[in-house]
Amino acid sequence: MDRRSFLKTSALGGASAAAAATLAAPMYAQGKRTLTMVTTWPRGLAGVWDSVERIAASVTALTDGAVTIEPKAAGELVGGLEVFDAVTAGQADMYHGADYYFTGQHPAWAYFTTVPFGMTAPEMMVWYYGMGGMDLHSKLGEIFGLKPFIAGQTGAQGGGWFRKEIKSASDFQGLKFRMPGLGGQALSELGASVQVLPGGEIYQALSSGALDGTEWIGPWSDEKLGLQEVCDFYYPAGFHEPGAALSVVTNLEVFDSLTPSQQKAIEIASGEGHQHNYALFMANNGPALQRLISAGVQVKEFSDDVWDAYGAASKTVLDGYMSDELFAEIRTSAEAAMASTSGWSGRSDSAYTAQRDRVLANLK
Amino acid sequence: MDRRSFLKTSALGGASAAAAATLAAPMYAQGKRTLTMVTTWPRGLAGVWDSVERIAASVTALTDGAVTIEPKAAGELVGGLEVFDAVTAGQADMYHGADYYFTGQHPAWAYFTTVPFGMTAPEMMVWYYGMGGMDLHSKLGEIFGLKPFIAGQTGAQGGGWFRKEIKSASDFQGLKFRMPGLGGQALSELGASVQVLPGGEIYQALSSGALDGTEWIGPWSDEKLGLQEVCDFYYPAGFHEPGAALSVVTNLEVFDSLTPSQQKAIEIASGEGHQHNYALFMANNGPALQRLISAGVQVKEFSDDVWDAYGAASKTVLDGYMSDELFAEIRTSAEAAMASTSGWSGRSDSAYTAQRDRVLANLK
Repeated sequence: MDRRSFLKTSALGGASAAAAATLAAPMYAQGKRTLTMVTTWPRGLAGVWDSVERIAASVTALTDGAVTIEPKAAGELVGGLEVFDAVTAGQADMYHGADYYFTGQHPAWAYFTTVPFGMTAPEMMVWYYGMGGMDLHSKLGEIFGLKPFIAGQTGAQGGGWFRKEIKSASDFQGLKFRMPGLGGQALSELGASVQVLPGGEIYQALSSGALDGTEWIGPWSDEKLGLQEVCDFYYPAGFHEPGAALSVVTNLEVFDSLTPSQQKAIEIASGEGHQHNYALFMANNGPALQRLISAGVQVKEFSDDVWDAYGAASKTVLDGYMSDELFAEIRTSAEAAMASTSGWSGRSDSAYTAQRDRVLANLK
Repeated sequence: MDRRSFLKTSALGGASAAAAATLAAPMYAQGKRTLTMVTTWPRGLAGVWDSVERIAASVTALTDGAVTIEPKAAGELVGGLEVFDAVTAGQADMYHGADYYFTGQHPAWAYFTTVPFGMTAPEMMVWYYGMGGMDLHSKLGEIFGLKPFIAGQTGAQGGGWFRKEIKSASDFQGLKFRMPGLGGQALSELGASVQVLPGGEIYQALSSGALDGTEWIGPWSDEKLGLQEVCDFYYPAGFHEPGAALSVVTNLEVFDSLTPSQQKAIEIASGEGHQHNYALFMANNGPALQRLISAGVQVKEFSDDVWDAYGAASKTVLDGYMSDELFAEIRTSAEAAMASTSGWSGRSDSAYTAQRDRVLANLK
């Protein structure tokens, strides 16, 4: 498949559409655009695919049908991990995915999904929309001819499922654990045998003993995989993905060929979609966690010793990328925002919720 | 001023605009709408007025100029607390305000801003966008001929400023404290002399001793009022407004007269605006709190005894409205969502951030 020819065709389509939009109204129907959105997801994956469909529906509604987004599941046009290259090359107009899949292209993409010991979902909102995160996302995207917006959010991902209880950091020695990305690299530092399996293969690997444990997403998604049937211990709090954003990333030439109001539709629909998707995951995680507890899952917290080890290993992994100037700029910005935000929310929200939950329990 | 004539004019404008939008394109310019937005705010009030301007700009951009929102500060067309009646009567097309100002019209409006011992801003997002809150907002609005969307968010409001340290609940006996709304009602239960002053009068009242303390918004806004100059003690965590949403509320006839894409523009711009405004307040509160601490403000937490008293008083106030069926429905929905969400986030986000902040401090 010749990506160059795709690029030319797409760019031409973009230019002619933009021209049409400025013509007299009888021509307007000819200005309608269909944008192909490749994704990193299987069609229908709960929560994540909801985000894909919501963004597409919002853009169509906001543009009164002038722009239609046609989502493609992983494998339908290109493979899930090929979406970045496909959109860069113009083979597809945009992708919906988790940017941390593309740390091979640039390690700083991780910051626009999540990094070990990084921001929670609300902290991410503050950095992204209020403290320069969005501009840095654009700056990174420009290098690759892309216009990115975060557009979905799973909230905190669980610390994971284990067949045996984790009592100290030494329990990770030789542990066969599924964890992708920078978190997985950190776990390797602790001596774990880190494996990366797609969702569809995890259950079987745990059943057969090929895996001793896994992380996946959160209670809602994990319950659907049936992880409670093959692991006794669940750790809700984890170090590796404290709030995972999903992105809508458009080929920059395609984006520039849209009218200002169409560009705004993609931007605002993505922003609204980020918050809505966070709500969707959180709304489902609460009840799912209660069902898991009712089903007999033992819910645990890692000891301070384990958290200390996670912290040191994560620092080693992140420090390893600091020779890249843009990575360093983005990490510095993100960590400064995180410290600033948690300096306030730790004394307000966290102190409040601890007291509220204590008082309301007593008032029952 | 004859509100009926305003209503007729507005309704006619709506109908003709909707008709124009379906005509051939040369007529389209005639379909342009200007919507008058009255607000509960002084022009330029930091954070809050930013929300007004952002929603207006987003709607104009998304509709390619077909809809322009013209914001009016409190007092320019009607007084700040008259906006609800003005929009209900059709004297203005929409308002931007805090719905809890309108508990006189219906007590349940409080739930769409904030209530004592209620949800934090992230929990509010989950309820509103993921667990039925938005539908209940619409249901309440319909009674008054209104179409409401939450559209801004201050985050947690501070527990307040005190000239003397609060050591136990008995310190509230006779304390002259400024706190509006249901929180103020709860404080009255504790024996405080509760007063409601507009922002511009607070500093002077504290200087003269007419007030012993006040709540306002958060560090960013409070610092602008100069409260650190007249009070020594600041309590970041408070019981009364754990996450205050702001709303854009449109006259239902006006809303129905808009095209579907224009209606969607108001909905999506409001949702995106909610998240963006939360980020703005949080981005500014963190640095402001640090400046206040550097300036010598003593930052305190209320004791368990005080929180217990706040809790009992708040329950008394909320229970007092339970004879209203819709209030009871909305309270039950909000409290169920809060319990569900905090059941997950307490074990994930809260456990994570406590460990993260501990570990990162040690790694420094």
